[in-house]
Amino acid sequence: MSSILHSFFRSGSSHRLRIALELKGISYDFRAVNLRMAEHKQPSYTALNPQGLVPAFELDDGTALIQSPAIIEYLEENWPDPPLFPSEPDLRAKARGMAAIIGCDIHPINNLRILNKLKSKFGADEAAIKDWTGTWIKDGFEALEALLPDSVLDGGFSFGEQPGVVECYLVPQVFSAHRFNVDLTGFPKIEALDQRCAALPAFEKAHPANQPAAV
Amino acid sequence: MSSILHSFFRSGSSHRLRIALELKGISYDFRAVNLRMAEHKQPSYTALNPQGLVPAFELDDGTALIQSPAIIEYLEENWPDPPLFPSEPDLRAKARGMAAIIGCDIHPINNLRILNKLKSKFGADEAAIKDWTGTWIKDGFEALEALLPDSVLDGGFSFGEQPGVVECYLVPQVFSAHRFNVDLTGFPKIEALDQRCAALPAFEKAHPANQPAAV
Repeated sequence: MSSILHSFFRSGSSHRLRIALELKGISYDFRAVNLRMAEHKQPSYTALNPQGLVPAFELDDGTALIQSPAIIEYLEENWPDPPLFPSEPDLRAKARGMAAIIGCDIHPINNLRILNKLKSKFGADEAAIKDWTGTWIKDGFEALEALLPDSVLDGGFSFGEQPGVVECYLVPQVFSAHRFNVDLTGFPKIEALDQRCAALPAFEKAHPANQPAAV
Repeated sequence: MSSILHSFFRSGSSHRLRIALELKGISYDFRAVNLRMAEHKQPSYTALNPQGLVPAFELDDGTALIQSPAIIEYLEENWPDPPLFPSEPDLRAKARGMAAIIGCDIHPINNLRILNKLKSKFGADEAAIKDWTGTWIKDGFEALEALLPDSVLDGGFSFGEQPGVVECYLVPQVFSAHRFNVDLTGFPKIEALDQRCAALPAFEKAHPANQPAAV
């Protein structure tokens, strides 16, 4: 029996979790939760995740874990090889900090429920949504561009020679930036990292376009 | 020489980090960064944290750690006693998931920079801000109320008999809920937990009103 990943193909937090699972070579069953059909608000799903957001990761024994940052830490603790986090404590804290720039200060602010609220409450049109999403993506990416080592321009990853937790968070956020037509020409390290990852099988398998329920 | 906490007295993420430091008995120097004076955007601060947000935690050797979730994990790894996380892996993942409900899906969406943007871009007035902040606080608190064990109504904490990472996140978020006049009568477990924590010295010392630069 495998664990079950409950996720929506386009959700950035589901996408980052799929990358982590693929990088670690953990097999899992995929269960689509269609946000546009509000399946995440159905009792069958909220029984698993009272927050009614994707993803949820259901263990063999039925235990449901929620929130991708928590699930990725769980994967690291229970499937330590290959590691997604640096082994040195200061570097591990830096990697977690860079992941949190995306996980706390970009992604949740551009989430579907927030954009829906901007439309319903403030009448935000397409241009206003683009301005909103672009503001937070660029703000966070400026910090990340400053924090990433120059070596990513020369074949490296954020921490060493293999992709890890920063890449798990970054690639889905770049995918989202493209969807929102954010100009990334000022972010050469981020673009180099994204392109390097795109060529790897784990990132290809985890890509939204390659999920069973992609529409 | 002590570590230096760069923080703003009222910032929720600074508040949660102060609680973690106090619970672990870690001494630190306090450096006020006044968000209302835009000190977090000054070069002297962005050299430390390119994201220009508080808190930052500066280690003895000058290494700056950013993002409170990453810093709290660092504290747990380097000052393991007393632990802020449960020892059992599934429970640790659950504690991290509950913390992330606040750390990802409530706090960053109600942050000062977001509220300023709602005002400048959409002309949000006080009532609209109250609706916005209340929406995300109540949404996340509903999930937390469902996830917290019934034992918190009977003298317990979220995981066992001592406060931990969930309490570090929850108490500042309840403080913020009070500031935004959110009605918490539907959240008896959260209120019980908050009141139990308020009586403890670590939480009292970390309280915004008890910081040197509180105004």
